[in-house]
Amino acid sequence: MRHMFFASAAVLAFAAASSAKAEEGMWTYDNFPIVRANQTLGTSIDQSWLDRVRLSSVKFGGCSAGVISGEGLVMTNNHCVATCVANLSTPQLQYAETGFTPKSREEELKCPGGSAEILTDITDVTARVQKAGEGLDGQAFTQAREAEAGRIETEACGSDPKIRCQVVSLYRGGQFKLYKFRKYSDVRLAWAPEDRAATFGGDLDNFSFPRFAIDAAFIRLYEDGKPALTPTHFTWNPDKLTEGEPVFITGNPGSTQRLLTQAQLMTIRDVVLPMDQLIASELRGRLIRYSEEGDEQAFIAMDPIVGVENTYKRGRGRMAALIDPAFMDQLAGQETVFRRRVAENEALSGQVGDPWAALAEVQPIARELYAPMALLEGGTGMGTTSVAGGSSLFQWARAIVRGAQERAKPSDQRLGEFADSRLPGVQSGLFAERPTYAALEQIRLEWWLSKTREWLTVDSPYVRTLLGKESPEDLSARLITGTKLADPAVRRALWEGGLPAVQASTDPLIQYVLAIDADARAVRADWDNKVKAPTDRASEQLAAARFAAFGDAVYPDATGTLRLTYGRVEGTDVPGQRIGAFTTFAGLWDRATGAEPFNVAPKLLAAKDRIDPNAVMNMAVSSDTIGGSSGSPAVNAKGEIIGANFDSTVLTQRNAYGYDRNVNRSVIVTTQAVTTALRDVYGMDHLIQELGVAPKVAPRRARR
Amino acid sequence: MRHMFFASAAVLAFAAASSAKAEEGMWTYDNFPIVRANQTLGTSIDQSWLDRVRLSSVKFGGCSAGVISGEGLVMTNNHCVATCVANLSTPQLQYAETGFTPKSREEELKCPGGSAEILTDITDVTARVQKAGEGLDGQAFTQAREAEAGRIETEACGSDPKIRCQVVSLYRGGQFKLYKFRKYSDVRLAWAPEDRAATFGGDLDNFSFPRFAIDAAFIRLYEDGKPALTPTHFTWNPDKLTEGEPVFITGNPGSTQRLLTQAQLMTIRDVVLPMDQLIASELRGRLIRYSEEGDEQAFIAMDPIVGVENTYKRGRGRMAALIDPAFMDQLAGQETVFRRRVAENEALSGQVGDPWAALAEVQPIARELYAPMALLEGGTGMGTTSVAGGSSLFQWARAIVRGAQERAKPSDQRLGEFADSRLPGVQSGLFAERPTYAALEQIRLEWWLSKTREWLTVDSPYVRTLLGKESPEDLSARLITGTKLADPAVRRALWEGGLPAVQASTDPLIQYVLAIDADARAVRADWDNKVKAPTDRASEQLAAARFAAFGDAVYPDATGTLRLTYGRVEGTDVPGQRIGAFTTFAGLWDRATGAEPFNVAPKLLAAKDRIDPNAVMNMAVSSDTIGGSSGSPAVNAKGEIIGANFDSTVLTQRNAYGYDRNVNRSVIVTTQAVTTALRDVYGMDHLIQELGVAPKVAPRRARR
Repeated sequence: MRHMFFASAAVLAFAAASSAKAEEGMWTYDNFPIVRANQTLGTSIDQSWLDRVRLSSVKFGGCSAGVISGEGLVMTNNHCVATCVANLSTPQLQYAETGFTPKSREEELKCPGGSAEILTDITDVTARVQKAGEGLDGQAFTQAREAEAGRIETEACGSDPKIRCQVVSLYRGGQFKLYKFRKYSDVRLAWAPEDRAATFGGDLDNFSFPRFAIDAAFIRLYEDGKPALTPTHFTWNPDKLTEGEPVFITGNPGSTQRLLTQAQLMTIRDVVLPMDQLIASELRGRLIRYSEEGDEQAFIAMDPIVGVENTYKRGRGRMAALIDPAFMDQLAGQETVFRRRVAENEALSGQVGDPWAALAEVQPIARELYAPMALLEGGTGMGTTSVAGGSSLFQWARAIVRGAQERAKPSDQRLGEFADSRLPGVQSGLFAERPTYAALEQIRLEWWLSKTREWLTVDSPYVRTLLGKESPEDLSARLITGTKLADPAVRRALWEGGLPAVQASTDPLIQYVLAIDADARAVRADWDNKVKAPTDRASEQLAAARFAAFGDAVYPDATGTLRLTYGRVEGTDVPGQRIGAFTTFAGLWDRATGAEPFNVAPKLLAAKDRIDPNAVMNMAVSSDTIGGSSGSPAVNAKGEIIGANFDSTVLTQRNAYGYDRNVNRSVIVTTQAVTTALRDVYGMDHLIQELGVAPKVAPRRARR
Repeated sequence: MRHMFFASAAVLAFAAASSAKAEEGMWTYDNFPIVRANQTLGTSIDQSWLDRVRLSSVKFGGCSAGVISGEGLVMTNNHCVATCVANLSTPQLQYAETGFTPKSREEELKCPGGSAEILTDITDVTARVQKAGEGLDGQAFTQAREAEAGRIETEACGSDPKIRCQVVSLYRGGQFKLYKFRKYSDVRLAWAPEDRAATFGGDLDNFSFPRFAIDAAFIRLYEDGKPALTPTHFTWNPDKLTEGEPVFITGNPGSTQRLLTQAQLMTIRDVVLPMDQLIASELRGRLIRYSEEGDEQAFIAMDPIVGVENTYKRGRGRMAALIDPAFMDQLAGQETVFRRRVAENEALSGQVGDPWAALAEVQPIARELYAPMALLEGGTGMGTTSVAGGSSLFQWARAIVRGAQERAKPSDQRLGEFADSRLPGVQSGLFAERPTYAALEQIRLEWWLSKTREWLTVDSPYVRTLLGKESPEDLSARLITGTKLADPAVRRALWEGGLPAVQASTDPLIQYVLAIDADARAVRADWDNKVKAPTDRASEQLAAARFAAFGDAVYPDATGTLRLTYGRVEGTDVPGQRIGAFTTFAGLWDRATGAEPFNVAPKLLAAKDRIDPNAVMNMAVSSDTIGGSSGSPAVNAKGEIIGANFDSTVLTQRNAYGYDRNVNRSVIVTTQAVTTALRDVYGMDHLIQELGVAPKVAPRRARR
């Protein structure tokens, strides 16, 4: 357990004067509390500041990023380009080992399937979406609203490949907003450090502070084969901050559950997290052993292991929160206050009814249906278990099969993810030139089949369909050996051939997905009818009650869309040791043992004498973040970029359920560290110049 | 979820007339409720019945067994001899594949390190042990009582290798009894079926009913190189039972937590089970992948995988119980009734104080210390995580190092497990000729070091001692490659050489254990002082209160010592299907798919035409059992053996915490199935004759 406290008497006094919750909230840009933030931090940001920061903020896959030059240069985290790096590498040329250091723009390489986007417009469409669901129940309710969202998206964006439209549900159905994005489909890798420079300490140091990781990388947005012009961008500020300074973080936090009721949280504690964590732990074991079988296996397994370990460690932090009596009492107390406010207001309580009871009634069903839904269909919105263990080949096969089936219907009668407005996203994922590794694909499929059989039991009709008389081992081997879907041309031909091509295909994975699809759709229908629809309805009532009780002084749960959050540079301590808010390169040299994962990356180590030991590597800030915020620009009061958020702490994982000012810390890789790496380690002079940093400094002597 | 109900109207009426809890309890033989059992079951057992059954009951490792002939023949489960079978096998000659089928006694093979014992006498020593701890606290308290127990054992048994004495704590310190055993140190394997005949359905069918498993094997007790004479033994009854018939089960249930308070159960739910399960799941994944690397790896990993999966599945059942609101409410209600009874009795409550509060106070400390204690020292008495991942080489190294250190002290000042009375047990484990496999040992050590680092954090001083600057991967490889402890002669020489030999040893594993031992001992002292001693004290008060409130109409928690439990043959159902209490060979042929683990063992399949399809394989009974009961003789009202308990169901796992008559089912392999296997499959005519069964029957035609 880490103890956190303020860094100085000045900051202490400041904090005492402000509300305990003053820094809480992942705010949408159209409802950011400018006055409150300025009062809390002593800043003077305004609407034009907000617009500039928003238009410099980038969504990149599941990550966030920031534009840092007028020619499309973007900073994100190295772990956000890990898949791109892996896709561009081969067992013979592993950029994770060497770093990716193109000496000019011409050498920048396209990330397969990569795309990035910038939020340009927000429009309220709440009335239209809610109206579409009126008078309907069950799956009809959810489908009608999804269809309406698809229509709104198509109306607003048409088929322009440079624009994407998305109807975003906020406040769990309390609001629907149309987000319009400028989309870049050609994203190239411009710089990545050695993997170990970004991941020093590996899984052990993940979700912890102090940290010593240069978890940053650069991509560049391209348009028509040339660097995109991006006149609105962050100014690069490589200077050191001081403790207590205000920090804003702009990015796309993935998902929080702060508006969930106690009953819903118990389902996560008792059912969702335990299953997710237990089966992930076994996959981790299989992958670790596989990675030890040889150098090639180690290369293939590296990225998947990091992914599994990250999700798993986050889950441990969340479980720790859900079994912490003090924390849970606090959340229960907030629910009690809210319910009392509603009960005391007769008109309001008459209008919203008892959504808490409705949600409590859903939970026994959700507990029963979570495992089949998560394992056979995915998209529960509650946990991390994914269909087919995340096998790319399986996911492509399903996209091809369902895409063919759904495209044969009118857009508004399809499964929501195949509405016309969403097809470009499906296609770009499907056609991307990404390598797959048969051994890894088989491990994933075998593990998934085996865990599905275990959790649903061998006598489940679903499991009989999944396996027939085969074992998970034999079936997964047969499917992966036989399929040709690793070839993007094969995928494209099947997609373009539509239903006839799919039905005529002899590809075993296509045939398999066809054979099991009816079950998966039935599970989804059951879930939609019995869990999703009643949950959405009750959540909408709760949202209405919350607006009535608290006005818009509340922020919505994170949904993977752009938010702005604010806080301060703030230290932490571990027992017996003062850490403060900053770590330096000197600390890195101290912590290195030479043994994995505490070995310093070779090029970084070789540059030791050129690096200022007092240069700041990472810093801790109190801003409210969650996964998906990775790569989020950290911005100072002037709107300059001062770092990229790359992590938080295990204790901070509780902020999925509620913001705890005492423990919440986001971990930032500083522009100072990145500048040092670019200039003193990787010789990226053309980028240093593009950032407007002085290209050379007199080399300093290392002090030790 | 399985639904359970009674088989017939007659049984229904019977059950309704008796108390709901009439069949609850794992009773000690000196406090068995003869009258109540006879009333409940309509039987007429008496003290001589009890004596005969007790003297026919065998403890064999962590399992139970029963004497079935006058010449030392003993039946237990096949999974109880799995380690023996593995130790006697080589990758070239795998008895798990072929079955072990000696055609005469001369071919019976000694199980390395195997021993068996029969409980002959029980003496009350409560006053002596409790007195030894009077006025003491912390580790001094636990050590003084352990020392006194050691003295009592030595006084009663001396150094006779044919007798073992053990002071047993019952009612969590409410009683101490001296158990005296007749010990057999030469135990030979007399028959084992093909592994798949015993494990049909593998982990999927484990802890479930209906089952189709011949999970039985025979061992034989030897004395002076000849079969031991065992005039007291069970009569073999191979006939089919009917539903509702009374069944007694005599065996050594391992551990229940029924006397734990609510606060203690929450620690198990929130801390103990989650850690145990999560890390076991990763080990499972590592072992599964390892087993897929080749035939030899599959052979080496088979036994460990079965062990891990069994513990893990049991843990899932227990977790399901601890998050089941109805079940937990019932337990909480029992605690409320008990506390009220104490509170209403002024004299009693004045005398016992508030042990519930004392135990609640211990929990935050237990939650903090569980991980270090389980991972570095073991013996928490709460969970399943064991030091060094169960590496045999490590455990031997620790026994050698600690044995040398402790034997340099007087017996009553040693760690309890090295008291004079316990040294023979330590030695027989240490000197046994058991094979080890370097790859498996390294997987265990690497996993353990890696998980210890993860759960205690990389900055823990303990972890620094454990790893120094090495990685778990490199350290485990260095230790296992370098150690010579796989050779029993090396172990014996170090043991006999005592402290000088240990200190002079250059064996890397001996040196490693020496280097980390101070930390492990410190963790144990901390645990003893802050958790074990206060828990023992408060539990003793609770036990006193319980005796005062309920008399001896309560039974003690299971502690791996001999118990007798009773119930009935009773059916179960799965949705849409009537199962009843029995499964037959016809059901086996139906369930077989041919794919692992639903492939019928080859010799069993080849005998299909010779086997009566209606012969009963397995049956379900309502008797109260728990792990460790494996191999327990199932006995009818006449005291004849009718089967061996080998399993229960996932739902039954809740009976660790409380007996739930509605779901509790023990699963029995019948003497009818074993007779069929011996006679019709494996041609074990000399055993059939020894059991007094007609050697031949006219072959029946299979009906399908």
